[in-house]
Amino acid sequence: MDSRVLRTRRDVLTAAMDELVEGGWDAVTHARVAGRAGYAKATLYAHWPDRLALVRDAFDQVGRMPHHEPTGDLRADLVGELVSFRTAMTEHRLDRALAVLAERAGPVPELVEVRRRFVEDGERPMRLLLAPVLSGARLEAATAMLCGAVVHATLLHGAPPTDEEVEAAVDLVLVGVTGA
Amino acid sequence: MDSRVLRTRRDVLTAAMDELVEGGWDAVTHARVAGRAGYAKATLYAHWPDRLALVRDAFDQVGRMPHHEPTGDLRADLVGELVSFRTAMTEHRLDRALAVLAERAGPVPELVEVRRRFVEDGERPMRLLLAPVLSGARLEAATAMLCGAVVHATLLHGAPPTDEEVEAAVDLVLVGVTGA
Repeated sequence: MDSRVLRTRRDVLTAAMDELVEGGWDAVTHARVAGRAGYAKATLYAHWPDRLALVRDAFDQVGRMPHHEPTGDLRADLVGELVSFRTAMTEHRLDRALAVLAERAGPVPELVEVRRRFVEDGERPMRLLLAPVLSGARLEAATAMLCGAVVHATLLHGAPPTDEEVEAAVDLVLVGVTGA
Repeated sequence: MDSRVLRTRRDVLTAAMDELVEGGWDAVTHARVAGRAGYAKATLYAHWPDRLALVRDAFDQVGRMPHHEPTGDLRADLVGELVSFRTAMTEHRLDRALAVLAERAGPVPELVEVRRRFVEDGERPMRLLLAPVLSGARLEAATAMLCGAVVHATLLHGAPPTDEEVEAAVDLVLVGVTGA
């Protein structure tokens, strides 16, 4: 793709994600996204025939959230990765993106696959940190507990975990790992 | 309230919650809920002036989800409580109710308080089980991790944790509690 096409794509998908996190699934209309990105509606329809196509590509573009750069110190790396996740939730509105995926994947089954790819991608660094010390159901459980502590606090309490809570979560798991 | 009023109230709020879990926030209209419950729209408007009033009372009615009856064996009680939570998620569509609260509390700030009450109520038994062995940030973290493991798997993976994963989560926390 030439740079003009790439720029259009980036502008449109950024606008689509902005509409999604601000207003939810129904806010992602071709008219609103086109207006926000500064392109003609016809341009959007040519590349993305429907809302689902726009949302799917918008999630693929977001794709790589900022993650913690591993240092080799497991405790520091787990804390760092959870803090990155928390930052993405609160400062990059990942909380809204995940909430929309969780809610709309019920009525819109095509979103199940979008959610699967996006969540798998986001979880990968956490899983890679834990894989040398845990496996099977314990690896699944620890990944779900650590990511889940941030998800639960942010999406259901409406407030992300404090630094102290993040460290307490990591320490509970690490004692569990080494003490079992 | 006489029994006829109570029955009307129960029927309407059950219908409102059914619409919510099936279609989401926008599906809760006075026309649809009245039709589903078998009452006149005017009856609904007389008691619940808007969608928020209907949804708020519907969540209050759901209120007490079935919980595990504590036995005094901490491990068995934590596993039992998580299994009850998982059952409520998958069989009583609590997954949908929580997803709608998580998503709509963004654009509809009045739902923040509804979410707070509902989640606090749902978490209470888990918190009571953990309170004798943990406090402060560690209690918060353990509650968020255990509830979060079910929330994360159900809402973001689209599949609740297996029995093995539930037990692994409880064991990781319990080793952390006793080994710290």
